[in-house]
Amino acid sequence: MGPETAAATLERDRGRIEQALVRFLPASTDPPVRLHEAMRYALFAGGKRLRHLLVLSGCRTCGGDVEDALNVAAAMEMIHTYSLVHDDLPAMDNDTMRRGKPTTHVVYGEALAILVGDALFTRGFELFAGAAAGERSAAALSICGRVAEAVGSRGMVGGQVLDLEAEGKRLDRAALEETHRMKTGRLITVSVVSGGICAGADEERLAALARYGDALGLAFQVVDDILDVTGSDARLGKSAGKDERASKSTFPALLGLDASREEADRLVSQALAALDGFGEEAGSLRHLARFVGARDH
Amino acid sequence: MGPETAAATLERDRGRIEQALVRFLPASTDPPVRLHEAMRYALFAGGKRLRHLLVLSGCRTCGGDVEDALNVAAAMEMIHTYSLVHDDLPAMDNDTMRRGKPTTHVVYGEALAILVGDALFTRGFELFAGAAAGERSAAALSICGRVAEAVGSRGMVGGQVLDLEAEGKRLDRAALEETHRMKTGRLITVSVVSGGICAGADEERLAALARYGDALGLAFQVVDDILDVTGSDARLGKSAGKDERASKSTFPALLGLDASREEADRLVSQALAALDGFGEEAGSLRHLARFVGARDH
Repeated sequence: MGPETAAATLERDRGRIEQALVRFLPASTDPPVRLHEAMRYALFAGGKRLRHLLVLSGCRTCGGDVEDALNVAAAMEMIHTYSLVHDDLPAMDNDTMRRGKPTTHVVYGEALAILVGDALFTRGFELFAGAAAGERSAAALSICGRVAEAVGSRGMVGGQVLDLEAEGKRLDRAALEETHRMKTGRLITVSVVSGGICAGADEERLAALARYGDALGLAFQVVDDILDVTGSDARLGKSAGKDERASKSTFPALLGLDASREEADRLVSQALAALDGFGEEAGSLRHLARFVGARDH
Repeated sequence: MGPETAAATLERDRGRIEQALVRFLPASTDPPVRLHEAMRYALFAGGKRLRHLLVLSGCRTCGGDVEDALNVAAAMEMIHTYSLVHDDLPAMDNDTMRRGKPTTHVVYGEALAILVGDALFTRGFELFAGAAAGERSAAALSICGRVAEAVGSRGMVGGQVLDLEAEGKRLDRAALEETHRMKTGRLITVSVVSGGICAGADEERLAALARYGDALGLAFQVVDDILDVTGSDARLGKSAGKDERASKSTFPALLGLDASREEADRLVSQALAALDGFGEEAGSLRHLARFVGARDH
């Protein structure tokens, strides 16, 4: 699969995603109407859908049918969105803009934003549980357990606590990497691994996908930090320079801008190397890694 | 099983619960320490453990070994506690006392309280997923799916939205019952049903447990409303008369106090009638129903 074909495949996956998300959300006419409306608002805010694409690409890379992974992919996107909605709250990062739109609590109020997060998270687990019946239930349960571990107090939620505690402090590199690994890395890794599980991949292949995800997740964060320094508000859809104003530790602050760019390249190469045992079927995962390394917003 | 024996059985279950909760929480020395400390604070605040007792009693009633249901029971208690921690937040019900102690956000701050709720919820689903392997995975997955449905936007979270929207409005009886059914009833029902699933009960028995849970859940809420009018702060461990001050619709406001007491008795009888097909093994469920009807705090 050449780079152009991979880009076309991912574009088709993006279309699948938007349809799947509509299908897997409760109708916005279902009561409580305002809650279901607000869930849609949060979810359809023009995100990159990276986690969703990783699930489908992980499934494809291991020879599975991506149609079988759509509910898992939609669930992962809901869980990611729940974390954004809660992180943006006034008591947390107090962000008023995200992806160029006012954040959920700005539009719907704080109480509803908390509940939108809770409901999206719950719907995600409902989708995991409904993903399979009969002989596939062991796979579905494995995904449930891995995701819960990745986003719990020793994963994503714990990472957000570390992030809040780190404001105004200077973290060393190990602490910064650990915070990012917990806060964003583990969900990225479990997304691509879950795709592999949907395809029935063996432990060896799942381990390769995990190595890919670990490197990709950290690369994503290093690039994010770089863009916060070099990007403009308009391209980012959020306030550039926010990390510095919040006195957050970042890779550019720790390593300098040039060394941060080199580190991002190194991590992208590491992600690609993890895919060496796969053939052309890993084209979309390779394309995603290059996209993460080269993105400018 | 006579009433005294049932009381003793439930007392032993209570001991099992506290041990199980300690075992299934991350150690409070694990990082982030403050998060794990706060999770314990929220969870060990002297609750009634009704949902946990319902899981174990549901399992026992269907002939199962309660030891096999302990992780599911602990998970249910964590999910219940998550909902309390979020409901108490300043943006929601703004409660500063719960079970006679300052609420989690009062002690640990709002940001951490949001994350404590998120982490308890996640840990609950992690426990469901880890509850079984091999041939029991279909049962574990069924519990995951049923709980997610019960606590999502058309269940508990939706009920909290309806409750917030209802402040200052006068609900009719159908709307009041629907709000309670979603907000507290469905988690109570799924608790006792999950106990039955742990025991491998058939659909007919699960349906009987669900009828029991539906009646019990509503009885619980009617009694709660009555106690808010008649109870003292000290016995309740929270502010009595709070519903009236918040202009919430309640059963006593709608039906009067005497008719509300009659309604609670009727619902308890209905819960007991749902157990007619069971023998002595339903002793602890019967005892719980009578306890809910007679409780004074």
